[in-house]
Amino acid sequence: MFTIPTLGNCVIPTPIKTGLFVDDTRSLLFDRYIPGVSGLKETEDPVTMEIAGPRENIYFDPSKVRAAIVTCGGLSPGINDVIRSMVMELYYRYGVLNISGIRYGLQGLIPSYGHPILDLTPDIVKDIHRTGGSILSSSRGDQDVDKIVQSLYRMNINILFCIGGDGTMRAAEKIAGETRKRDVSISVIGIPKTIDNDLSTLDQTFGFDTAISEAVKVIQCAHVESKGAPNGIGLIKIMGRSSGHIAVSATLANNDVNFVLIPEVPFSLQGDKGFLKALEVRLRRSAHAVILVAEGAGQNFNPSREALGTDPSGNVRLFDIGIFLKNEIEVYFKARNIELNLKYIDPSYIIRSVPAAAGDSIYCMLLGQYAVHAGMSGKTAMVVGRYDNQYVHLPLSAVTSRRNVDREGPLWRAALAATGQPPSMLSE
Amino acid sequence: MFTIPTLGNCVIPTPIKTGLFVDDTRSLLFDRYIPGVSGLKETEDPVTMEIAGPRENIYFDPSKVRAAIVTCGGLSPGINDVIRSMVMELYYRYGVLNISGIRYGLQGLIPSYGHPILDLTPDIVKDIHRTGGSILSSSRGDQDVDKIVQSLYRMNINILFCIGGDGTMRAAEKIAGETRKRDVSISVIGIPKTIDNDLSTLDQTFGFDTAISEAVKVIQCAHVESKGAPNGIGLIKIMGRSSGHIAVSATLANNDVNFVLIPEVPFSLQGDKGFLKALEVRLRRSAHAVILVAEGAGQNFNPSREALGTDPSGNVRLFDIGIFLKNEIEVYFKARNIELNLKYIDPSYIIRSVPAAAGDSIYCMLLGQYAVHAGMSGKTAMVVGRYDNQYVHLPLSAVTSRRNVDREGPLWRAALAATGQPPSMLSE
Amino acid sequence: MFTIPTLGNCVIPTPIKTGLFVDDTRSLLFDRYIPGVSGLKETEDPVTMEIAGPRENIYFDPSKVRAAIVTCGGLSPGINDVIRSMVMELYYRYGVLNISGIRYGLQGLIPSYGHPILDLTPDIVKDIHRTGGSILSSSRGDQDVDKIVQSLYRMNINILFCIGGDGTMRAAEKIAGETRKRDVSISVIGIPKTIDNDLSTLDQTFGFDTAISEAVKVIQCAHVESKGAPNGIGLIKIMGRSSGHIAVSATLANNDVNFVLIPEVPFSLQGDKGFLKALEVRLRRSAHAVILVAEGAGQNFNPSREALGTDPSGNVRLFDIGIFLKNEIEVYFKARNIELNLKYIDPSYIIRSVPAAAGDSIYCMLLGQYAVHAGMSGKTAMVVGRYDNQYVHLPLSAVTSRRNVDREGPLWRAALAATGQPPSMLSE
Amino acid sequence: MFTIPTLGNCVIPTPIKTGLFVDDTRSLLFDRYIPGVSGLKETEDPVTMEIAGPRENIYFDPSKVRAAIVTCGGLSPGINDVIRSMVMELYYRYGVLNISGIRYGLQGLIPSYGHPILDLTPDIVKDIHRTGGSILSSSRGDQDVDKIVQSLYRMNINILFCIGGDGTMRAAEKIAGETRKRDVSISVIGIPKTIDNDLSTLDQTFGFDTAISEAVKVIQCAHVESKGAPNGIGLIKIMGRSSGHIAVSATLANNDVNFVLIPEVPFSLQGDKGFLKALEVRLRRSAHAVILVAEGAGQNFNPSREALGTDPSGNVRLFDIGIFLKNEIEVYFKARNIELNLKYIDPSYIIRSVPAAAGDSIYCMLLGQYAVHAGMSGKTAMVVGRYDNQYVHLPLSAVTSRRNVDREGPLWRAALAATGQPPSMLSE
Repeated sequence: MFTIPTLGNCVIPTPIKTGLFVDDTRSLLFDRYIPGVSGLKETEDPVTMEIAGPRENIYFDPSKVRAAIVTCGGLSPGINDVIRSMVMELYYRYGVLNISGIRYGLQGLIPSYGHPILDLTPDIVKDIHRTGGSILSSSRGDQDVDKIVQSLYRMNINILFCIGGDGTMRAAEKIAGETRKRDVSISVIGIPKTIDNDLSTLDQTFGFDTAISEAVKVIQCAHVESKGAPNGIGLIKIMGRSSGHIAVSATLANNDVNFVLIPEVPFSLQGDKGFLKALEVRLRRSAHAVILVAEGAGQNFNPSREALGTDPSGNVRLFDIGIFLKNEIEVYFKARNIELNLKYIDPSYIIRSVPAAAGDSIYCMLLGQYAVHAGMSGKTAMVVGRYDNQYVHLPLSAVTSRRNVDREGPLWRAALAATGQPPSMLSE
Repeated sequence: MFTIPTLGNCVIPTPIKTGLFVDDTRSLLFDRYIPGVSGLKETEDPVTMEIAGPRENIYFDPSKVRAAIVTCGGLSPGINDVIRSMVMELYYRYGVLNISGIRYGLQGLIPSYGHPILDLTPDIVKDIHRTGGSILSSSRGDQDVDKIVQSLYRMNINILFCIGGDGTMRAAEKIAGETRKRDVSISVIGIPKTIDNDLSTLDQTFGFDTAISEAVKVIQCAHVESKGAPNGIGLIKIMGRSSGHIAVSATLANNDVNFVLIPEVPFSLQGDKGFLKALEVRLRRSAHAVILVAEGAGQNFNPSREALGTDPSGNVRLFDIGIFLKNEIEVYFKARNIELNLKYIDPSYIIRSVPAAAGDSIYCMLLGQYAVHAGMSGKTAMVVGRYDNQYVHLPLSAVTSRRNVDREGPLWRAALAATGQPPSMLSE
Repeated sequence: MFTIPTLGNCVIPTPIKTGLFVDDTRSLLFDRYIPGVSGLKETEDPVTMEIAGPRENIYFDPSKVRAAIVTCGGLSPGINDVIRSMVMELYYRYGVLNISGIRYGLQGLIPSYGHPILDLTPDIVKDIHRTGGSILSSSRGDQDVDKIVQSLYRMNINILFCIGGDGTMRAAEKIAGETRKRDVSISVIGIPKTIDNDLSTLDQTFGFDTAISEAVKVIQCAHVESKGAPNGIGLIKIMGRSSGHIAVSATLANNDVNFVLIPEVPFSLQGDKGFLKALEVRLRRSAHAVILVAEGAGQNFNPSREALGTDPSGNVRLFDIGIFLKNEIEVYFKARNIELNLKYIDPSYIIRSVPAAAGDSIYCMLLGQYAVHAGMSGKTAMVVGRYDNQYVHLPLSAVTSRRNVDREGPLWRAALAATGQPPSMLSE
Repeated sequence: MFTIPTLGNCVIPTPIKTGLFVDDTRSLLFDRYIPGVSGLKETEDPVTMEIAGPRENIYFDPSKVRAAIVTCGGLSPGINDVIRSMVMELYYRYGVLNISGIRYGLQGLIPSYGHPILDLTPDIVKDIHRTGGSILSSSRGDQDVDKIVQSLYRMNINILFCIGGDGTMRAAEKIAGETRKRDVSISVIGIPKTIDNDLSTLDQTFGFDTAISEAVKVIQCAHVESKGAPNGIGLIKIMGRSSGHIAVSATLANNDVNFVLIPEVPFSLQGDKGFLKALEVRLRRSAHAVILVAEGAGQNFNPSREALGTDPSGNVRLFDIGIFLKNEIEVYFKARNIELNLKYIDPSYIIRSVPAAAGDSIYCMLLGQYAVHAGMSGKTAMVVGRYDNQYVHLPLSAVTSRRNVDREGPLWRAALAATGQPPSMLSE
C-alpha cells in the first residue's frame, strides 16, 4: 500500500452531518488485472491505495484551523473551480472561516515580493468558475523553502493546498519535509495540474477535456485554411512537452488531422521514408494537409545541439519545433518549385485559458472536496487524484513520473488510422 | 467471471498489423476494494470481466463477413461517432467491405416497413460525427424476433451491432437466443446508449458529458430569466426517468440551481417542510429561484393515480411533473397573493440532438472499435463498455440494472451544498 | 422634419473634450429614394430627422444633474450593454456621478412596491455585459403616471432613460407630458427594445442578431430530431407577436426549415391547398420536416373565438398556436393512420436571455452613448435609434407603429425559396 | 448618378414570378445629410446610386446563359454563403442550369495550372454554408487578362461573378474592359470581400461581424493570461492592413483591451508620452495589460526602412509589428529589471476561417441574390453592396478607396474610453 503520512491522531468529530465516512483501511487495488484464472491468489501482497473521502474523526479543529491555497505554474482550465470547491467545502461543510489565498504562486509566500494575501470567502469565490485562469494568479519557479515555512508559520497556516505541476509537487514535498523537521504541524496537500495529462498514476488531469475541445476548434480552422489555397498547409503547434496526449486526443476527436507528430514517436525529416516526402505525397494526392505537432516532438532536430537551459519552473526549455518545421517545409517545397501556402498557428494560450467545460467543472469540484477531507484529517505530503474512476490518496512522489502515449496502444493506433500517415516516418 | 458466449473457435489470423493483442484469460476485477489489510486473500474467487480488445485470431473471415448496424430508441450525442468508428474499423483495419446500415431501428429489419438499407462506406460516414442524431435514423419499440432473424439470415448478416437502450439490449438478447436456437452463426454485439447514464455496471454512457454541457447553458438562461422579473422562477424539466444523474451533474457543473428534484429523493409539496414552503422562503429572501426537475421525479403526485401505460419502447409513460409543478407553484403563490413570474423550459430535444463534444467523440470512437473487435472474434450476446476506466465485455443481461444517485454519496451531498435546498423536503 | 421637444436653451459647455459636435440643424432625409432623374427637386420640403450625437452646449449641469435608468418588459439580449454604456458615458465623459438604477421596471418608481434603488457606478456595471438579462430586473405593465412623476420629483431625477417596448414608450410619453404640464424639467429619453424587430422607423432593434443566432441552434436540433425517427417533425414556436421577422431571418440564416408560418401570411389548415396537406406531401417525399411558427401566426384558428384579454404590458394575449398546431398535426396523421414522431420545442426563454453577441454589444454601446448625449442636451419625449445606418432622434410617437415582413419583398421571397413551401397555403 | 455599364437592352421577360421589380431609374441619394433647413434645394444635382434588385426584363436568356463563380484572396467568413446563394438563385429563380465553379481563384482560368472546373448545382452547395472557407478554394495574385478572357470565351461564360478584395476588383475591371474591347458580351459582377471592412462606399463587408465575434473570444483568453502571472501581458496581433476597424470594434465589443493600436493613429514607443511608458504606468497600477495591435499599425518602426516588397495579391508586405512590439516590450522591462510575462497571440487564421454567424449568413445570401439579378440584367463592371442599409449597384472603381477609422468619430472616442489609454501616445 502507498503510505500516506499523517500529522497525528484524528480525535475531533467531523462537523460533516450526513454521508458515509471512509475508513483508512479501506483501499483500492493498484493493479486489478488478473492474468489468468487462478491469478489473483498469486498476488499475495498487492499494492493498494488509500480511498479519499471524509473521515469520521479529523485532526484539525475547524474553529481554529487556518487554510491557505496557492496556484503555481501555467494555466489550465478548472483552477478556479478547484479553488471555489475547496473554499466552499472548508467554509460550509467544516466551518473553517480562515482561508488565505496566496497570490502569484510561491512568490506569495516570500515577503520580499510584497504580494498581499487575498482572504477567500464564499462570496469572493462564488462566480469564479465562470472565468478561466486563476483568481490567485500564478508564477513559475522555486522559492526558498526556509522562507516559505517561516511565512506559513508566521501566518499560522495549518493546511496548505498546492495546485500545480511537477515542480510544485516537488516544492510541496520539500515544504512538508521541512515542516516535519521543525515539528510544525502543517498539512501539505497537492492537487496535480498539468494540461499535458501525462501523470502515470492518475486517470486524467483536470482541464484536459476542455483543452481538447478548444484544440478541436483550432484544427477545424486549420483544415479550412489548408483547403483555401493551392497546396495549403495548416501547421499547428500544440502543448505536450514530453507526451503527445493532447495532440493524439485532439486528432481523434476531430478527424481532420493528416499528420500528428508527438515526442514518443521519433521521425525523420529527409529521406524516402521521412516526413517531408510523406507530406509531398499527401499534397500531390490531396493538395492540402493539416499537421499537428506537440511542442516536445522532434527535439532531436535542434540544430545547435546545445542545451537551451531551463525555464523558471525547472523545465528544460524546448527547441521551437513549430517554427523549425515551418521553415523546413517551406525550404523543401521551394527547392522543388512547388507552390505552397503554409499557415502556422500556435494556439496554446487560447486553449488553456478558457473556463472549464461542464465535465471538468464537476471533476474539479470533487477534487477540491477530497483535498479538503484529506487536509482536515491531518494527511500530508500527498495528492488527491482519480485512479481508475475512484478518488484516492497518493504520496507526492508517486505522481511525478511520466506517462507516455503507448505506441502499441489503441489511442496511437487509432491516431494512425485517423490521419492515414505512415506508421513510421523514420528513415534508416 | 462474467461469461461471454462465443460462436466458436477463433482460428483466422486477424489482419490487424500492429498493436498488442488481448487474451481472453486476461480479465479485470469487478470489485477491487479491499476492506482490510489482509482482505484480498479472503476473496478466493473474485468476479472478473473479460478485457476488450483485438484478438490474435478471429472467428469471421473478413473477406466474407457481412456486418450490420442498427440504432434504436431516443437520440443521444455521439451515435454517429459510434457508427463512423465501427465502419472505419471494419473497413480499414479488418478489410470488411460489406456493412449494412439498417434504417429506422428494428423497423428496418421488418420487410413490411419497406425501409431501404443504406450501404455504409468510409466515404458515407467520414463527416457524420459533425452532426447530431443518427444517420440511420431510429425508432422505438419491439419488433417480431422471428422476422428479424429471418431478415438477418436472408441478408446474410453475420454480425449485428445494436446501439440502443434497455429495450434494445433485451431485443438483442432475444435475437442472439433465437439465432443460437436455429444454429445460425450471428454475433450480436450491443453498445449501450442511455442519456440518463443510469447503467450500474458501466462508468458512464456516451453522450452524457455533452448533454451536461448543453443543460448548463439552459440553466444559465433560466437563471437570467428568474432574475429578470419580480419573484422570477426558472423551472426546467430535464431528462432522467428513473435516476437524477443528469439533473445532479448539471447542478454541480453550474451552481445556479436552487432546487434540484430527482426520482431518488422523494419530496412533499405541501406542509412546513414541503417544497412549496421552501420555495416561498427562498423567494422572500432572494426574490428569484431556479428549479431543475428530472422528468421521473415526483411521480407519486400523479393525481389520477392510474397507470399511463407504456410507450413504444416499453417504458412506463411518465406523469408530466414539469407542467404539474408549474401549476402547483402558480396556485400556491396566487393563493398567497404573491406576484410570481414563472418561466417554464423543457429543453430535452435541444440537449440530446447536438453533436458529441470532444471527450464523447473519443469515447464513442473507442467503443466502436472495441465492438468491432468483439464481433470479429465471434463473441455474442454481449456489450462493450468502460468499467473503472477499462474497456470490457459484459453479458447483455448485466447492463440492464439501474444505477441510482446515491443519497449518501458525494454527488448528492455536493448538490445539496450547491443548491442550498433543505436536505429533506418530505413532510411527515 | 420630425420635431424633437427640448427643455430649453443649451448654454452649458459640454465637458466632452474631443470629437466633432453635431448641430441640431444637421439632419437626415427620411426618404432618400429618388423616383426619377429629376425627382429630387420635386420634393420641396422633405421629411428629415435630427442627427444624434454630442452637442457643443448642453442643458444640464453635469455636476448637479441626477439621471435614472429603468428597464421594462421582456428580456432581450443587450439590455445590460445599454445600461453599462449609459453609466460609463454619463460618468466618464460628462462627469455625472448620480445615476440611479430603478429596479423592476416602472414598479421601482412606485413607493408601495418597496423596491430599493441601485446606485449605478462604473464599478457596478463594468462586467454586466457578460451576462444576459437586466441587472435592474424588469416588470411588465403600466403604473400610475402621477405617482411616477412624484417619485422622479422627490428623487430629484432630471433625466429618465427608459429601455422598453411599445408600452414603455407610451408610458414614457405620458411621463414626459405630465412633467411638462407641471413645468418640471425632466428629460425623458427612450431606447426602444423589442426582440421582434418590428419598429417601422428603425433599422433593427438591439438583440435581434443575437436572437437569430440562438434560434439557428435550436432549428439545427429540431432538424436532427426530425430526421431521427420515422416521419419525424420538429415543430418550433418562436417569438414574433405581430411580425415574423425572427422566424423569417432564422429561416434564412439556417436553411433547415421546411415551413415557416408568420402573422403576415395567413394560411389554411385543411383543404387541398392547406398546410396539413402540404405537410403530408412533404413527409411522403422526405419523411421528415421542420416547422417554424411565429407565436402570432394563425391567430384566426382560436377555436373559442373569444378574446383572451391582455397581459400586464397591455399586449393582447395570444392564442397558443404552437400547442394548437401540434394537436392538429397529430390528429390529422392519426386519422390517416400514418406514424408520426412530433417533437415540440418552445425555446423563447433560452433565446432572449443570452448575453449580446459582439455586433449587438457594439450597437448597444452606441445607442447608450447617443441616449446620454440627447438627455444631457435637454431633449425629451424622444428615442434614439439607427435609421439607414445613421443614429438619429425620433419623437416617441414615431416608433410605435409596426413594421411587417413585406410579402412582396426579398426576405419573404427568399424564405419561400429556402423552405420550398407553397407560396400560398390558403384554401378558398 | 454613378453610371453602371450595361451590355445592352433587356428584352427577355424574367422568369421570376412574384415580387416587386426595381426600375433602373429608381435610385438612392449618395449624401442624404441636409446641412440646414433649406439645404436640400441647394443640391441641385445630387449623386445617386442605382438600386439593386430584380428587373422586369433581363438581358440573358436563362436557358442559354452560362455563369461562373470565382473566389480570390484571403478567407473571410461567409464566402460559401455567397456561393450557395448565387447558385440557388440562378438555378431555382432564373432556371440557369450551367454554373461553373472556378477553382483556386484566377489560377482556375489559366489553363496551364490545370485546375479542373467544379460544376455547381443545388445539391453540391446546399450545406456548404455550415463550413468556413471557400469550396472553390482561392489564390492570390494577378493572372494574364488575355488568357482569362480567352478562357471565358472558350468556356462560353456569359456572366462572371468575382468574390474578392481590391486586387480582384481591379482584375475584374480589366476583364470587363477587355471583353468590351473584343465585343464579347460578358457581364462581370463583383462582390467585394475584405475582412478589414475598410471600403468607403459600403456599410460593412461580409464576414466582419463574425470576425469580431471570434476576436472577442481571443481577447478574453489574452485577458485571462495577462492576469495569470506577475505583470502579465496579453499581446494580440489582429487583421487590419490599412485600417483599424477590426481592432476597434473588437475592443468595443469586449471591454478587456487596455491598449488598441491602429494604422490611423501613429504612436511613439519611447519618451514620456510614448507607448512603453504608458504600458509601464499601467502595469505599476494594475499588474496586467491586454494590447491589441492591428497588423498595419506602427509600420514606421520598420528598422531597416527598406521596402518589403509586395505579396502575390499586390499588397505591400507589412513589417511584423506584433513580433517587433513583443521584443521592444521585453527589452524595455528587462532594462528596468521588472519581471514580465508576455503572451503573444496571432489569431488571424482562426478568426477568418470559421463559418459565418447568423447575421452574416443572411447578409451573404442577399448579396448573392442581388449579384445574380445584376448579372442577369446585363449589368457589368460593377459591384453589389449595401449602402446605408439599402442594396445598390456601384461601379467597380468606386469601391477601391479606403475607409479609415475616424479619429474624431464616436468609434475611436469610445475605444479610448473603453481602454483608458492616453488619447495620444505620440512623443514630440
